[in-house]
Amino acid sequence: MILSNIKKPTLLIDRKKVEININTITAKTKKSGIIFRPHFKTHQSNEVGKIYKELGINKITVSSVGMANYFMNDGWEDITIAFPLNIRELPEIQEIASKIKLNILISSSAQLQNIDICINSPIGFFLKIDTGYHRAGIDYRMTDEIDELLKISSTNPLLSFKGFLSHFGNTYGAKNINDIIAIYHSGIQKLLALKTKYQKKYPEIIISIGDTPSTSLIEDFGKIDEIRPGNFVYYDWMQKNLGSCREEQIAVAVACPVIDINHQRNEILIYGGAVHFSKEFVIDTNRQKTFGSIVELSHTGWSESVEGCFLKSLSQEHGLIHADQAFMPKVKTGDLIGILPIHSCLTANLLKESYLII
Amino acid sequence: MILSNIKKPTLLIDRKKVEININTITAKTKKSGIIFRPHFKTHQSNEVGKIYKELGINKITVSSVGMANYFMNDGWEDITIAFPLNIRELPEIQEIASKIKLNILISSSAQLQNIDICINSPIGFFLKIDTGYHRAGIDYRMTDEIDELLKISSTNPLLSFKGFLSHFGNTYGAKNINDIIAIYHSGIQKLLALKTKYQKKYPEIIISIGDTPSTSLIEDFGKIDEIRPGNFVYYDWMQKNLGSCREEQIAVAVACPVIDINHQRNEILIYGGAVHFSKEFVIDTNRQKTFGSIVELSHTGWSESVEGCFLKSLSQEHGLIHADQAFMPKVKTGDLIGILPIHSCLTANLLKESYLII
Repeated sequence: MILSNIKKPTLLIDRKKVEININTITAKTKKSGIIFRPHFKTHQSNEVGKIYKELGINKITVSSVGMANYFMNDGWEDITIAFPLNIRELPEIQEIASKIKLNILISSSAQLQNIDICINSPIGFFLKIDTGYHRAGIDYRMTDEIDELLKISSTNPLLSFKGFLSHFGNTYGAKNINDIIAIYHSGIQKLLALKTKYQKKYPEIIISIGDTPSTSLIEDFGKIDEIRPGNFVYYDWMQKNLGSCREEQIAVAVACPVIDINHQRNEILIYGGAVHFSKEFVIDTNRQKTFGSIVELSHTGWSESVEGCFLKSLSQEHGLIHADQAFMPKVKTGDLIGILPIHSCLTANLLKESYLII
Repeated sequence: MILSNIKKPTLLIDRKKVEININTITAKTKKSGIIFRPHFKTHQSNEVGKIYKELGINKITVSSVGMANYFMNDGWEDITIAFPLNIRELPEIQEIASKIKLNILISSSAQLQNIDICINSPIGFFLKIDTGYHRAGIDYRMTDEIDELLKISSTNPLLSFKGFLSHFGNTYGAKNINDIIAIYHSGIQKLLALKTKYQKKYPEIIISIGDTPSTSLIEDFGKIDEIRPGNFVYYDWMQKNLGSCREEQIAVAVACPVIDINHQRNEILIYGGAVHFSKEFVIDTNRQKTFGSIVELSHTGWSESVEGCFLKSLSQEHGLIHADQAFMPKVKTGDLIGILPIHSCLTANLLKESYLII
């Protein structure tokens, strides 16, 4: 890695760590005999997609029609858009469905109403089920609603029912690893009950789940059929705090130029702000509001996070690091400093045009 | 405005409100006889830049070298980069300085060290002064440091000292209007003392300040020479909460497709998440954590914010609105709903490629 070429905040992607992260989950899914359909919303990059492809992945998840289009144009032929159907984009969805194997998400009858007019290619659909996160989807107890949706969809031979899909997003708010595992088991129990009920009529249906915390911690996926985590490819400081990864698994750091140093306040001003990191933060173990953790960069990668140092605030382009007294003499204006982001998905989205695979 | 063409989260920019916002500040600066050098980091758009140009603005502020380049390429010829010098970008800065009138910011001697080698065109510089925000700049009391910087810079005839520049960013954390005004007066007092001390030797120097809250509330800028607010062009829910604007001055709303409606929880799921809004929030008067305020869209603009409704959470692409019971029957899947953003600068940055001037 040629650090001297970096002039502005740049996402460094450690290819080796990315490969290990992918291989770790792949191995678990192979052992459990289930489908691994990673979520590409985290990286949104054809270059990172290529790493996945080299490691044998051929089914992917995305969270927007635009992303489906982007990855289809790079040769991906089996895509699930894991976001409930936006009926305003039906013409664009039809365009993609006419070319590749596409699955969409349905969570209400209103979404189905315009499909007959706009879609004239075969398309798969999952029913989006809410097992307790309460963001999107049909409440898992509402089997009347599920029956109604399946009845409406059955009149259209182009629509094939693929199964039940859920995102256990409440694991992100879990207090500890045991909580995450409990949310996982409670969620799959609900989904399995649905599968049992409906598979008599639809023998091919599957259960698909997606969050990084639970899919990182669970070793044996038992009766699940498919997982769709995304964040695990990079992980981040939030996942490390949650306990779903170890720090050395974090595969991205943002290289930021050092702009100024304040010795009175033990602060380092960097070029790197909310337009590079977003505004996500965690309350760290020392009870500090933390927008990122600090690492030292080298030509081969980065160090462990430096104790006593953290990104304490962000404005649009500025970031302010609180540094330990011992760290201050190591840094000078014009250096590059590394930041492990709080939420790698949002950071990678903002640095889509400023990254480097090392 | 043709709402039916909108398929994904789109920033609606109300040209009339933008013009009023620009004219209001312009009129105050003319009355006070000072320079108005608006900050273009808020909109980052040549189209909005054109509105400014039509209203007589010809000096601008930006917060990155990339932005300076972008606006220079659209014909702007007098630009201040209001971000302390990133010495890694000196070659790019030289390129711009060779073509237009450019001012940069200096806050330490380390920043000056490489200038002699890299810069061979005339360039203006401001000393960045910290009057109490404690993000960046030289403490206003450190006149020894100021003396040293002026001494170093005086050896280079290409460098011309323009004056003292400050950003009263602490006004954003103010509790009320009186607080904002107090921060403003305390800040300018410190800057005026510096100007008085140094203008004997440098008779041309000016004082430049920048935040939207104080420049919106102050009517007579007195002895200040230049203001550089940016956010005022759009304002947002945060500024409205601070008291620096009225709701009807907010000139942007994000049009978001309605994806699903949950009648049990009075919630509306929209396509519009952290990759469109960023993750900024305010604690609203009802003590709710609010990621945006809700308005009804029409073909000519948008309504007042709907009472009892607010954007309660954001994930990457999803937004979840808590709606008042009375509002629920008005909304159906596939509609567009408007969101007044919390922080328009971050939202506009994320929607740079998805906006509509109405």
